[in-house]
Amino acid sequence: MSKEGQPGTDMIGLQDSVLASGQFCANYRTFGRSCLFNFPVNFIAYLYCLQMVTRILAPTMYIFFASALPVIAFGEQLSTATNGRLTTVETLASTAICGIIHSIVGGQPLLIVGIAEPTIIMYTYLYNFAKKQQGLGEQLYLAWTGWVCIWTAIMLFLLAMFNASNVISRFTRVAGELFGMLITVLFLQEAIKGIISEFNVPEDADSSSPIHQFPWLYVNGLLGVIFSIGLLYTALRTRRARSWLYGVGCLRSFIADYGVPLMVIVWTALSYTLPSKVLSGVPRRLLSPLPWESSSLGHWTIVEDMISVPPAYIFAAIVPALMVAGLYFFDHSVASQLAQQKEYNLKKPSAYHYDIFVLGIMVLLCGLIGIPPSNGVLPQSPMHTRSLAVLKRQLLSKKMVDTAKKSIGKSATSLEIYGKMQEVFIEMDSEQNADSVDKELKNFKDAVLQEGDEEGKLAREFDPRKHIEAHLPIRVNEQRLSNLLQSILIGGCVGAMPVIRMVPTSVLWGYFAYMAIDSLPGNQFWERIQLLFIAESRRYKVLEGPHASFVESVPPKTIAIFTIFQLVYLLICFGITWIPIAGILFPMPFFLMILIRQYLLPKFFDPILLRELDAAEYEELDGVPHEHTLEDEVSEVGSCISRPDAEILDELTTNRGELKHRTSSLREERPVQVPSNAVQPSL
Amino acid sequence: MSKEGQPGTDMIGLQDSVLASGQFCANYRTFGRSCLFNFPVNFIAYLYCLQMVTRILAPTMYIFFASALPVIAFGEQLSTATNGRLTTVETLASTAICGIIHSIVGGQPLLIVGIAEPTIIMYTYLYNFAKKQQGLGEQLYLAWTGWVCIWTAIMLFLLAMFNASNVISRFTRVAGELFGMLITVLFLQEAIKGIISEFNVPEDADSSSPIHQFPWLYVNGLLGVIFSIGLLYTALRTRRARSWLYGVGCLRSFIADYGVPLMVIVWTALSYTLPSKVLSGVPRRLLSPLPWESSSLGHWTIVEDMISVPPAYIFAAIVPALMVAGLYFFDHSVASQLAQQKEYNLKKPSAYHYDIFVLGIMVLLCGLIGIPPSNGVLPQSPMHTRSLAVLKRQLLSKKMVDTAKKSIGKSATSLEIYGKMQEVFIEMDSEQNADSVDKELKNFKDAVLQEGDEEGKLAREFDPRKHIEAHLPIRVNEQRLSNLLQSILIGGCVGAMPVIRMVPTSVLWGYFAYMAIDSLPGNQFWERIQLLFIAESRRYKVLEGPHASFVESVPPKTIAIFTIFQLVYLLICFGITWIPIAGILFPMPFFLMILIRQYLLPKFFDPILLRELDAAEYEELDGVPHEHTLEDEVSEVGSCISRPDAEILDELTTNRGELKHRTSSLREERPVQVPSNAVQPSL
Repeated sequence: MSKEGQPGTDMIGLQDSVLASGQFCANYRTFGRSCLFNFPVNFIAYLYCLQMVTRILAPTMYIFFASALPVIAFGEQLSTATNGRLTTVETLASTAICGIIHSIVGGQPLLIVGIAEPTIIMYTYLYNFAKKQQGLGEQLYLAWTGWVCIWTAIMLFLLAMFNASNVISRFTRVAGELFGMLITVLFLQEAIKGIISEFNVPEDADSSSPIHQFPWLYVNGLLGVIFSIGLLYTALRTRRARSWLYGVGCLRSFIADYGVPLMVIVWTALSYTLPSKVLSGVPRRLLSPLPWESSSLGHWTIVEDMISVPPAYIFAAIVPALMVAGLYFFDHSVASQLAQQKEYNLKKPSAYHYDIFVLGIMVLLCGLIGIPPSNGVLPQSPMHTRSLAVLKRQLLSKKMVDTAKKSIGKSATSLEIYGKMQEVFIEMDSEQNADSVDKELKNFKDAVLQEGDEEGKLAREFDPRKHIEAHLPIRVNEQRLSNLLQSILIGGCVGAMPVIRMVPTSVLWGYFAYMAIDSLPGNQFWERIQLLFIAESRRYKVLEGPHASFVESVPPKTIAIFTIFQLVYLLICFGITWIPIAGILFPMPFFLMILIRQYLLPKFFDPILLRELDAAEYEELDGVPHEHTLEDEVSEVGSCISRPDAEILDELTTNRGELKHRTSSLREERPVQVPSNAVQPSL
Repeated sequence: MSKEGQPGTDMIGLQDSVLASGQFCANYRTFGRSCLFNFPVNFIAYLYCLQMVTRILAPTMYIFFASALPVIAFGEQLSTATNGRLTTVETLASTAICGIIHSIVGGQPLLIVGIAEPTIIMYTYLYNFAKKQQGLGEQLYLAWTGWVCIWTAIMLFLLAMFNASNVISRFTRVAGELFGMLITVLFLQEAIKGIISEFNVPEDADSSSPIHQFPWLYVNGLLGVIFSIGLLYTALRTRRARSWLYGVGCLRSFIADYGVPLMVIVWTALSYTLPSKVLSGVPRRLLSPLPWESSSLGHWTIVEDMISVPPAYIFAAIVPALMVAGLYFFDHSVASQLAQQKEYNLKKPSAYHYDIFVLGIMVLLCGLIGIPPSNGVLPQSPMHTRSLAVLKRQLLSKKMVDTAKKSIGKSATSLEIYGKMQEVFIEMDSEQNADSVDKELKNFKDAVLQEGDEEGKLAREFDPRKHIEAHLPIRVNEQRLSNLLQSILIGGCVGAMPVIRMVPTSVLWGYFAYMAIDSLPGNQFWERIQLLFIAESRRYKVLEGPHASFVESVPPKTIAIFTIFQLVYLLICFGITWIPIAGILFPMPFFLMILIRQYLLPKFFDPILLRELDAAEYEELDGVPHEHTLEDEVSEVGSCISRPDAEILDELTTNRGELKHRTSSLREERPVQVPSNAVQPSL
C-alpha cells in the first residue's frame, strides 16, 4: 500500500492483492489506530479542547447539510418514480447506515458515501422492469433488487480482490466529464419536469378536489415557478458570498458554506406566508411517509421475500448488477481519489482496493434490508477534505515573500532562494521536523526551481507572492469523527421527516436546477461547448481571462470537432436513458468511451492534441493570460464595423451615456489650487 | 456665445445677455444653417447616401425606443394618479410636439426633450390639490395647470433674459446625485406599489366580476410578480450584451441597444401564451384610452376653460409655477450640459440661455392645450450624442501606439513623444487641417505632457495604449434630423395606442424597477452608501478595482459622516413627497442643498476633503489600483480567523471542492515526453 497517498500515479504501481495478502488489515490498523480504537479517549479529549471541537464540528455541519439536501431530493425523485415503494426515508437510512459503517471501518474516512443520481436512475429502471413482470410485480420489486445487490456485492468483492482499482487511470477526463454532463442534463430534466408537474394534477390524486381545479392548479404552478426560480437564483448568489464586498467576513463565510440549505429554509418559510385565502395543499409539499408509518416499515423484512423470487429472475439480476457494480466501482474510486488529491498532503495512505471491499459489504447489507445502497459521492467527498484543510500561511507566507524578494534583489539563483525560504519555513513552523518539511515543501521546491532556467536564474515571470501562495503546503486534519457525526445526523433526519415534509416540492425542483448549474464551472467539456458559441474575433477575450492551456495549443477547428463528437455522444447517452427497459444499460456508453478514447480517438486526432484536450487535471497548465494586442483589434474591425466603436464608447461612458471624465493620471499630479475654489466660490 | 462648446467651464465666463443682445438669433442662424434651412436639400442628399442614412437612422431608432418607453410608463403612472384625466396619450403628445419644436428651433438639437418623472409628480400634486378645491375641482384641473404653465413660462423667459444658466456651475455633484437618488427611490416605490396593486382590485373597478375574486386576483398578482421580475432581470442582462462572449458582434450590439424594448415585447408576447383557461383580463394591461375617444379629446380646448378659473387660483398658481420653473430650468440645463460634454468635441457652440427661452415657449404651448410640458431629459440626451459619436481610431491608435512605444524605447522626452504622435495623427487624418488638429488633440496633449515630470521624462506609469485610447478625440455627427425623426416617431406612437395597450401593467412595474437600478452605477452617492457596508478589512478590494480618487484621499470616517448626512437629507426629501399638498415643495430641499453646500458644509468638513467628495466629474481622477499587500492580509486575520483561509481555499478549489491542479508555469516548461503516454498506454 502506497505511503505517499498519491492516487492516480502510485496506484498503478500497486501490485499487492489487498484481500489475498491480508495486508489491508495491517493497513487498516495503522490508519485506524489513532482514531477508532482510542475513540472514547479521543472523544473526551475533544470535549476538553474547544479548538479541536470547532475544527471537527464546523466540517461536520458543513458536510451534513451538503449531503442531506441531495439525499432528500433524490428520495423525492425516487418516491415519484417508484410510486412510493422507496422514499426519502430509505435514501436517508441508506446514507446514514453506510456512512456510519464507512466512517468506522472504511479505509479512507475522508470519503463521504451517500445516495447519488445514478442509483436513483438504476432503481427506477429496476422498478419499471419489475412491475411489468408477472413473476415479480410491485410486490417482489424490493426482494428482486436484493438479489441485484447480492450479485453486485460479489462482483465488487472480485474487483477488490484483483486490485481492479488500478484501472482507474484509464478513466480519463473525457469519460468523466461526459458522465458529469449527463447527470447535469438529467438534473435539468428533473427540474423542468418537476415545474411542469406543478401545473398538472398529480397521478393517483383526486382530480375532483378543489385544489385540482383550474385556477388553483394554476396558482400552484405559478407559485412553483416563483419558488423554484427563487431558490435557484438565491442559492447561486449565496454560493459566491465569500467574495462579496459587503458584510462581515464570518457572516459571508457562513452564508457561502450554508447558503443553499439556508435558502431552502427561507423559501420554505416564505411558502408559509401566503395569504390565508390560499387553499391548504397549495403549494404542494413533499409526500414522503413518516418512517413509523406502515408503508415505510415493510422493507426491513425484505430478506424473507427474497426466496419467493423465481430463479430465472435471480439470474437475470446479473445484468443490472453488472451495471451497478461498474457504476459504483467507478464513482467510489473517483470520489475517493478526489478526496485525497496529492496537494492535500494527506499523511495516511490510500486504500482503494480495501474500500471497494467495504463497499461490497455495504451493498450487500442494503440489499438485504431493502434499501438502495450508497456509494462514494462526488461533490461532497472533496468538499469534506477541503473543509478539514488548514492553511497555516498567513504569517508564513509574508515572511517567505519578504525573503524571496530580498534574495531576488540580490540576483540570487533559484536554489539559493529556495534555501532561504526553507529556512524561514522551518523556523516559523516549529512543530515539524526537517524531514517532513522536505516532503511537504516538495511541490513548492519544484515550482521555484522550475521557474528558473538552466543557469539557476529565476525566470522573469517569477512572482514571489503568487508562487508562494500557490505552492505552500496544506495540512488536513485527518480523522473519522466528522464523517461519523455527519452520518449520525443524516440518520437523525429520518426522525425529522415531519419537518422535511414542510418543504414545497417546487423548492426541490429549484434545487435540482441549482445542482445542475453548480456542477458546470470547471467542466472542460462545458467550457469547450461555450467556445463553440464564441465568434473568432472574440476569442482574445478568452485568452485574456483565466483559461486552460488547450485553448492556445489546440487549433480551434480540432477543439470544435472534438467537442461536437462529444456532444453527439452525450445526446446518444441521453437518448439511451429514455429507452424504457434497455435504458438500464445507460452506463455502457461510458465504459465504451474508455475504450474509444484509448484505441479509436488517437486514429482520428493528433495524439498530442488529444492529450491536450483530455489532459488529466494535474497535467494541465494555465494558459498565459494574453495581452489583447492592437493587431487583433484591427483585424476585428472587418467582421462588424460598428461594433468595436460602440464597445469602446461603452467603456468610455456611463450607462446613461455620460462620458466618464476620470483621467488616468496620478492623484499627486492634480493641481493644488483647485480646493480653494470650493471655499470661496466666485459668483 | 462661446465658440468652444465647453459647458461648465466656459459658461461661467459668458457675460452676453442672450435675449437682450439678440445674439441668440445670430447664433441660431450659424447653428441652423447647415441643417434647418437646407432641410429639403439635405433630406434628398441623405436618401442618396446610404451611409449617411444609417448614421442617422440607427441613432434615431435608438433614441426613439429609449424615449418612448419611459414616456409610456410615466403616462400610465399619471393616468392612475389623475384618475385618467391625463394618460399616455397626453405624455406622448407632449413629448412629440415639444420634440419637433426643439429639434427645429432649439439651440442645441442634440438635447432630447420629453416627459420626466418630476413632471409626473408635479402634475399629481396639482391634481390632488385641484380636485379638493371647490373653486376648481376635477373639471378645472387642466385649465388651472394651464395657468401654472403660463406663470412657469414667464419665469423661464426671465431666467433666459438674465442669463441665469450661468448659475448652473453652482449645481454641484451633491445636489444632482441627491436628486437622482430621490428619483431612483420614487421609481422603486412605483414598482413596488405597482406589483402590490396587481394583487388587489383596482379602484373604480367592478369588484364582483370573476377576475376580481380571490383565486383569479391571486393568479393576476403572481403573474405580475413573474412578469415584472422577469422584465427587470432580462433587461438588466441584455443591457450588458455588448460585453457578452457569445454571439456575433452585430447581434450583441443590437441586443445591447434595443434589449430593453425587445424585452418589453418578449414579455408582452409571453403574456399572450397563457393557457386559454385563464380568464380574459388576467394579466391586466395598460388602461389608456385611445386618442380618438372622447375622453382624450377634451383637453385640446382647455384654453376656453381657463377664463373660468377664479382669480385667486390664478395667482395661487405662482407657487407651483416657481417649483416647476426651478425644476425645468435645472433639468433642462443639466441635460443640455451632459449632451455637449467637452470630450465630445462638438463643433457647434452651446446655447443655454436661448434654449431656456425655447423651453418657455414649449411650456406655454403645452399649458394652453392642456398637456403636461416636456423638458430636457437626462439619460436620453447624452445617449443621443453618444450614438452620433464616431471613433476614427482603429488604425490611428495602432500607429500612434507604435510610435509612442518606439519613442519610449529611445527614452525620448514627453514633448518629443507628443510631437511624433501628432505627426502620425495629421498624416493619417487628411481631412483635418493642422489648426483644428491642435484643438482636437489638446486633451490628449495635456495627458501626455502631464504624465511626464518636470524634466520632460515620462512617468513610469505611462502606458501608450491606455492613454492614447482614453484621449483620442471623438467626432459627433451634429444635425437636427435624428431628433426630428425620433420626435415624429413618438408622435406616431399616439396612433399606435391599440398596440401599446397590449403591454401588461406588470411589465411596466418591472420597467420602473429597471430604470431605478440602471441609474445607480456611476452615482457616487450610491457608491459611498455601498462603502458604508464594506468592512474595513475588505476595503482593499475596492482599492484594487476601479475606484474614484476620494476613496483614497478622504478618511473613511469623513466619507461615512458625509454619506450619512446625505442619506438623512435624502430621507427628509423622500418624506416631503409623502406630504399630501405641501409635497409640491419637494424640489425646495434641492435648491436649499445648493446653499448648504456652498455656505454650511465647508464649516463642518475640511474644504479640501469636501472638494474631493463633491468633485465635478471632470475634476475627478481615477484612484490608482492598489496591489493588495501582505501587510493588509496579516492585519485582516485578527478580525475573523477562519475567513481568509476559507477564501484562499475557495480560490484554490473548484465549486465541488476539488483542488485545481493547474500550475502557473509556462506551457513551454511542460515535459515533452508526456504525450507519448497517451498513444501507447501501459496497462
